[in-house]
Amino acid sequence: MSAYTPPIDDLRFVLEELADLDSIRVLPGYEEVQSDLVDAILSEAGKVAVQVLAPLNRVGDEVGARLEAGLVVTPPGWQEAFQTFVAGGWSGLMFDPKFGGQGLPRVVSTAVQEMWESSNMSFALWLLLTQAAAEAISIIGTAEQKSVYLSKLVRGEWTGTMNLTEPQAGSDLSAISAIAVPEESGHYLLSGQKMFITYGDHDLAENIIHLVLARTPDAPDGVKGISLFIVPKFIPDSVGEPGLRNEVRCVSLEHKLGIHGSPTALMSYGEDRGAVAYLVGEVNRGLEYMFIMMNAARHAVGVEGYGIADRAYQQALAYSQERIQGRSVGQRDGARVAIINHPDIQRMLLEMRCQIEAMRALGCCTAAAMDRAERHPEAQVRQQQQRRVDVLIPIVKGWSTEVGNQITSQALQVHGGMGFMEETGAAQHYRDARITTIYEGTTGIQASDLVGRKLLRDGGEMVREVIADIREDLLSIRNTRNEASDVAGHVEEALSDLEDSTTWMLESAGRDQRIPFAASFDYLMMFGTVVGGWQMACAAGAAAQRLDGGRGDARFNREKLATARCYVHQILPRVRGFSVQIRCGAEAVVAAGDIVF
Amino acid sequence: MSAYTPPIDDLRFVLEELADLDSIRVLPGYEEVQSDLVDAILSEAGKVAVQVLAPLNRVGDEVGARLEAGLVVTPPGWQEAFQTFVAGGWSGLMFDPKFGGQGLPRVVSTAVQEMWESSNMSFALWLLLTQAAAEAISIIGTAEQKSVYLSKLVRGEWTGTMNLTEPQAGSDLSAISAIAVPEESGHYLLSGQKMFITYGDHDLAENIIHLVLARTPDAPDGVKGISLFIVPKFIPDSVGEPGLRNEVRCVSLEHKLGIHGSPTALMSYGEDRGAVAYLVGEVNRGLEYMFIMMNAARHAVGVEGYGIADRAYQQALAYSQERIQGRSVGQRDGARVAIINHPDIQRMLLEMRCQIEAMRALGCCTAAAMDRAERHPEAQVRQQQQRRVDVLIPIVKGWSTEVGNQITSQALQVHGGMGFMEETGAAQHYRDARITTIYEGTTGIQASDLVGRKLLRDGGEMVREVIADIREDLLSIRNTRNEASDVAGHVEEALSDLEDSTTWMLESAGRDQRIPFAASFDYLMMFGTVVGGWQMACAAGAAAQRLDGGRGDARFNREKLATARCYVHQILPRVRGFSVQIRCGAEAVVAAGDIVF
Repeated sequence: MSAYTPPIDDLRFVLEELADLDSIRVLPGYEEVQSDLVDAILSEAGKVAVQVLAPLNRVGDEVGARLEAGLVVTPPGWQEAFQTFVAGGWSGLMFDPKFGGQGLPRVVSTAVQEMWESSNMSFALWLLLTQAAAEAISIIGTAEQKSVYLSKLVRGEWTGTMNLTEPQAGSDLSAISAIAVPEESGHYLLSGQKMFITYGDHDLAENIIHLVLARTPDAPDGVKGISLFIVPKFIPDSVGEPGLRNEVRCVSLEHKLGIHGSPTALMSYGEDRGAVAYLVGEVNRGLEYMFIMMNAARHAVGVEGYGIADRAYQQALAYSQERIQGRSVGQRDGARVAIINHPDIQRMLLEMRCQIEAMRALGCCTAAAMDRAERHPEAQVRQQQQRRVDVLIPIVKGWSTEVGNQITSQALQVHGGMGFMEETGAAQHYRDARITTIYEGTTGIQASDLVGRKLLRDGGEMVREVIADIREDLLSIRNTRNEASDVAGHVEEALSDLEDSTTWMLESAGRDQRIPFAASFDYLMMFGTVVGGWQMACAAGAAAQRLDGGRGDARFNREKLATARCYVHQILPRVRGFSVQIRCGAEAVVAAGDIVF
Repeated sequence: MSAYTPPIDDLRFVLEELADLDSIRVLPGYEEVQSDLVDAILSEAGKVAVQVLAPLNRVGDEVGARLEAGLVVTPPGWQEAFQTFVAGGWSGLMFDPKFGGQGLPRVVSTAVQEMWESSNMSFALWLLLTQAAAEAISIIGTAEQKSVYLSKLVRGEWTGTMNLTEPQAGSDLSAISAIAVPEESGHYLLSGQKMFITYGDHDLAENIIHLVLARTPDAPDGVKGISLFIVPKFIPDSVGEPGLRNEVRCVSLEHKLGIHGSPTALMSYGEDRGAVAYLVGEVNRGLEYMFIMMNAARHAVGVEGYGIADRAYQQALAYSQERIQGRSVGQRDGARVAIINHPDIQRMLLEMRCQIEAMRALGCCTAAAMDRAERHPEAQVRQQQQRRVDVLIPIVKGWSTEVGNQITSQALQVHGGMGFMEETGAAQHYRDARITTIYEGTTGIQASDLVGRKLLRDGGEMVREVIADIREDLLSIRNTRNEASDVAGHVEEALSDLEDSTTWMLESAGRDQRIPFAASFDYLMMFGTVVGGWQMACAAGAAAQRLDGGRGDARFNREKLATARCYVHQILPRVRGFSVQIRCGAEAVVAAGDIVF
């Protein structure tokens, strides 16, 4: 296995040039986020990723998390890594300093998160869920809940979980049957089983705070009767330290294709009297609250998608530079060469690289939009940025994880026969990545969210606004008439295809509501491919300006122009296929479905 | 895990309507291959697949093959399955009855092979290699070699292996260093290590016949100095029974991502004096002989690609019919439905199904062309069919395995979170399928074969001939002016795109030889997608005629028309992307490669 090299230069480029860190620094509370601070954070995080997390990725896969005498034991070395990680303050990067956080914007936290995912995605999962739980409590929790739970979660002394799925109810939350009965003392007694609970139990932290969806006894049916509860593993005592053991039990761990280091638990609540549970926010608003956590969690899973892809890419690149096999094209004699000299290997490596750059840019830019949506002083801007976030979240999640999977597969392929051997490590990335298109909502669910909630619900307004914004960016790049101009021109064409497909989707719903949903996956992938092109055009524009102005590393800027051209000529043409599949394929699918199934 | 249902109806349709079994029945030796015989064979093979092989697929994955005290132990139940399988005469299906075979054409054997791959790909691998070894000996071996080895291999009493790869030489056979020194008694003493040897050792049969590439002491460098040898595990005695143990040793087994039931061995030959080896054919012609085996083996791996895809599809279909979740599109209340009602699930299932049908048709039609190339009385037809085979083999191998991998991934995706759990079984198909794009030459090597040997070498003649033949088929379907006419029209457009891309590929080689090779993967995938469309158009044509004539099962025929329409509208549009990627992407890749790497 190759060493992991944090992509600091590209992250810095993305933050400054594409995510417009300047516009984040003027937001209230982020005035300190200057370049040298960001550089220091990226560099320190890179060291932790390389020195602490990456070396434990393999043992996490091989040994995995184990259930021993009812408690989950993490792989060797993980407890020490957790202590180091938490001591460095990494768990509270984007939380309020009042609760022990670092008070950084999400866009910086997103750049850092990528390094955790690349170095050890299974390890980083406790953080993803803990941040989601902390976020929910920080937004909805009472002052007391914040004082008891939030600083513990932000400091990483305790970790958090999200409990949605039940054995009979997967993505369909209306079928949730866990029940929480109010007690006179003010808390609830909760009982029921929850499955697929990431880090549902473990030995890393002294307490685990479960956020659990359940129904109160007189709740209405369906999603309108779901409430959100805090269920601590150990009930905090009067001074906020872990006290009595609650009725929460890890029944079993799943035997999974990948992310073996991350314990995926079947949790049982309240098998005897009921687990002590505290209502978060108001009764029956649980689904709404869960969506707050879910938006952030979906974005974070998108980052996993390209984070693990970058690790796989780096390993494939290193192998292709070492592995000697065959001769250069057209050479029958002479020295055998490293396989990176073969054009098809270069194609694979460049497809991986330019898509990783595009996904990284989109992930960070979406995070920056989330920052603006939260903190911009003008309500109009906040709302406009929130609309952009709403449209882009299912794309960051769905598209980045689908492409991330393709990339881990290509990385394995570059290794030839060695890629199929577990000791090479390429197979682990391939297995680990496979969960990312599934959890926090499958790609199908992201596509349905994009088409149902984001496109059809408002008759296409939000989507058209995003398209118009992109067109403006592209036009200004094309008008510079530098090396990036041609790149932007190609993306403009693809954007027009996307606009046409958007119109078609809206119209088709009038004929048969099933059609836009049959097209939803292709529409999501088309959207992702186009916004990836938008990011690469912006990147090319910035790189060309830097080159013209003699700013930045010239080699970096030239490489960026080259990968942008690869993107528009080798990746973006897929849009043409998607466009026809949307227009003709979806109807063929619906018609065939009526005949065949 | 769902039960396996052999696709007898579709296989029969493909054999009779698409592979033109009538044209095979007139070939010398195949006069007996009438419909009722073929039906009986398919039906009996289906029973063996369902009752004997399928139930052992899971234990093969979980227990795997193990090396114990220097010998390989296969999973529980595999020895009994092997005995049953061999006793049924299944190992010699397409071999000469003189040596104990059934004397059936390859096209029938291919139809049967698919069922072995669907039910238990790891098990079926011994057969794939044994058939390849038997084929090589039947073509190149001496009369004595045939009498000693061939009937044992054909009857499945012994199994065979192919030994190409060495630790320092993967796909690059010019680097082979195993050495075979001639002895006065006429045999050779061979020594060296070979890796990735499928079923290199096992406890199923009483003897193993290794076909090994090695160099004689005074052989020229490179591929022109490679010879082919038989190295039996036990040296046959004077009556042809296993005698002295040869110097052949399984050093270790690989720890692989998938196909755990199939032992992948590191083999050591002649660690002391040298392993007794017998030259096959002439000295220094080993590579040429290996290609004889490889063509058949590559075709067989293509069959693996769609065989395992069909198993994965069937399982996903069954799950989607059972799993209740959510409501139908547009319904907010009412009963929850099985997920097969969701349009995006139907899209996935139909994408899988129509591509499996296309790959199956192409695999069988290519096998039929191999039969005609071997036995047609007219030399001109034999040569024309051989040219078609030469063009199609890398496509059957490369395209079917790439698509097969996509399908096992989609099948896993249909299961949602359950797909990621190993006990569901979807993950095993996903892991098992991953080897198919790698062994017997990676997809990159297939693409390089297609572009280098099949396209550029003769200036496009062979490829243009295939395209012209396809155009003729399509024209005649379009002229029928029935329901299939529109399908054929769409494929004609895609075929024109393929022709344009072919011309472009040939021209680009003149500018920079690296360009067509950078485009080779996309060209192979484009070619596969188009010939898949050709097959589906032919299928639609036959189904429409059957419907018109009231022949065959009406439901089957209507479903075939529906899946053909899905193929042309949902799969074929990808051709548009490939076409641009070839024309623009390959040059961008080559240019970027010079800058980035």
